[in-house]
Amino acid sequence: MRTRLAMAFAAIVIAATPTAAQDMLVEKLVFELPEYTTVGGQTIRNVQVGWEAYGTLNAAKDNVILITHYFSGTSHAAGKYAPDETVPGYWDAIIGPGKAIDTNKYYVISSDTLVNLGTGDPRVVTTGPATIDPATNKPYGMSFPIVTIRDFVEVQRALLDSLGIQKLHAVMGASMGALQAYEWAAVYPERVERVIPVIGAGWADASLIAWLNVWAAPITLDPKWNGGDYYDSEPPLEGLAEALKVVTLHAQHWEWANANFGRTWAEVGKDPAKSFDNLYKIEAVLDGAGAGRAKISDANHFLYLVKANQLFYAGHGPELYSGLLAIDGPVLIIHTDEDLVFPPEAVRETAAVIGADGTQVEIVELQGTRGHLDGVLSIAQAAPQIRAFLDR
Amino acid sequence: MRTRLAMAFAAIVIAATPTAAQDMLVEKLVFELPEYTTVGGQTIRNVQVGWEAYGTLNAAKDNVILITHYFSGTSHAAGKYAPDETVPGYWDAIIGPGKAIDTNKYYVISSDTLVNLGTGDPRVVTTGPATIDPATNKPYGMSFPIVTIRDFVEVQRALLDSLGIQKLHAVMGASMGALQAYEWAAVYPERVERVIPVIGAGWADASLIAWLNVWAAPITLDPKWNGGDYYDSEPPLEGLAEALKVVTLHAQHWEWANANFGRTWAEVGKDPAKSFDNLYKIEAVLDGAGAGRAKISDANHFLYLVKANQLFYAGHGPELYSGLLAIDGPVLIIHTDEDLVFPPEAVRETAAVIGADGTQVEIVELQGTRGHLDGVLSIAQAAPQIRAFLDR
Repeated sequence: MRTRLAMAFAAIVIAATPTAAQDMLVEKLVFELPEYTTVGGQTIRNVQVGWEAYGTLNAAKDNVILITHYFSGTSHAAGKYAPDETVPGYWDAIIGPGKAIDTNKYYVISSDTLVNLGTGDPRVVTTGPATIDPATNKPYGMSFPIVTIRDFVEVQRALLDSLGIQKLHAVMGASMGALQAYEWAAVYPERVERVIPVIGAGWADASLIAWLNVWAAPITLDPKWNGGDYYDSEPPLEGLAEALKVVTLHAQHWEWANANFGRTWAEVGKDPAKSFDNLYKIEAVLDGAGAGRAKISDANHFLYLVKANQLFYAGHGPELYSGLLAIDGPVLIIHTDEDLVFPPEAVRETAAVIGADGTQVEIVELQGTRGHLDGVLSIAQAAPQIRAFLDR
Repeated sequence: MRTRLAMAFAAIVIAATPTAAQDMLVEKLVFELPEYTTVGGQTIRNVQVGWEAYGTLNAAKDNVILITHYFSGTSHAAGKYAPDETVPGYWDAIIGPGKAIDTNKYYVISSDTLVNLGTGDPRVVTTGPATIDPATNKPYGMSFPIVTIRDFVEVQRALLDSLGIQKLHAVMGASMGALQAYEWAAVYPERVERVIPVIGAGWADASLIAWLNVWAAPITLDPKWNGGDYYDSEPPLEGLAEALKVVTLHAQHWEWANANFGRTWAEVGKDPAKSFDNLYKIEAVLDGAGAGRAKISDANHFLYLVKANQLFYAGHGPELYSGLLAIDGPVLIIHTDEDLVFPPEAVRETAAVIGADGTQVEIVELQGTRGHLDGVLSIAQAAPQIRAFLDR
């Protein structure tokens, strides 16, 4: 059932990912930290995050590419867990043997973040409000420390340290993954040789802060949310489904909506003019996507992810731009002008700031009708530029 | 108190409307229909809508311009109710003596729609779910008939008939007002000599249908909504405030958000990184705008307005385009490329359809940073074109 629901959502998010002749089989690994102290100064015991790796770590441990995931994503960036799975990892089009991120050459690591959304997905390993607090033997709920994109990066750094990896050939991520990529390069410029931020800007601006607030609001409106204390009762599925619906719509573009749905009714014979229960098809599909995804997600984790994204500006330093100016390695920014979440102006301003002190910045513009999601769905368009950028 | 709240909202929506040297004083009139049968076939008794008029009806009754209002608007399009009011009607910049819509020449009529949002505004007169049903002596709630943009037009037509007005020199409206303008011209081409749709397209496309659904969802999530039956208890103010917040943000553009708020905290010393209660300024301002406006609005009316907008396509005829093709009079479309509610592609496609059979169509593009709202706030930019179009 879970798989079917997840796939219903995937049908919207990841349509028609090509299947390779030979699938790369991958497994989920778990990284554990006995304790982690957040940048905000609070200590979390027994931190666990899932991770995957594709390719082989070389002896010098200098062929590593780190992939950081998006808001509703996981560490499953490429390959399949079993040959009979229909949907591979989200960037399978560019990660694998002979692909743009060539796993014959690079060792690619992808990790779940703290407060990952998909707590109900057995392949996700994360630590957040839904995790049992060892101090109370109950889920943290909203007592979990507020975490930032920097905290996601620090846990990844600990993972890399545990593997003896000092330098990253590149760090690459889409959307919230782009924020992590900027953060990595801003805070550890000496460890990051190349940066590939996809569909993301160097800071959360007022517009994004406000939209993230809109995403989150349905959760706290749902009485079952109960201040985040719902682990002994029913979770706020209705509010969470609505929140996920808003994300799904916002991450698309009107061209997609109009081309695929038009004014078609959800059900033949059920005219939307006749009843508030009769919907248009796009409403029903988005409702279904939100509800399906809600069943494997956690509402509090959603709120913590929103907070982390709102708090983001690269480096979290004294000035808005100081982190971006600290970036040394060349940067390949991939985005689309149709993006409604990180609009093109924000991405171009980010590029201008990074390049202001002479750091090399290139921009690749994707074409498509999916808006923000083209950064996931249409990434293959940028394969030649990614390959060349990594090989330089 | 009401006025202060309304003004707090107006401060966002209608900023810095210029005050004329001599204000035009206006009064609210009430049009009554003993009964009205909706296009869907249901009869509503004792229909009342408010209206205003500016200028003087000439003897031939052929100098009439009808103004139709937007989603959260009212019939107060120009002038002031009293000399000491600070905010005039929303299009005061173009309606008045000597202005683009010159009330020395034209008789301008503006009417509240059915299911107008502002039931708590004593200057709004409307009929909808919050109205007492004469059959039960209780508010209709969700038993009120579903109404469409066509029904808004039919009530306006009855108003004009009651005044002996057969022809409109022009019909003009912004956003939902544009939909009414298209509808008038599509259904009564022989009565509409000119059409000026502002920031609106000829049909609700899938994207708009979905976003309208997102606007409405917080209301039905609020347990106080109670299936629309809340008139004897507390109204769903929290859900309604959230709905109005989404509308306010969606009707703006990111340039406005970023230029005015950036990453400023709502309160000095209350770092958003420290608590979920600590907000960014843009969040607090939007929350305040939504909450203030909610107090004079009705949640069920909001839902009926959403439904009317979703159901809209000009003419409501056999084909999507047939209504637009029925338009005869010249059309002056005013819009902005920064509009996130009715994107430029939809507006240009509308113009192309109208012009396909030779009907004269012009497009004026507004410049600004307010997105959709520039159709209200920056309408003065189009004053020369409006004046010339009306005089031709």
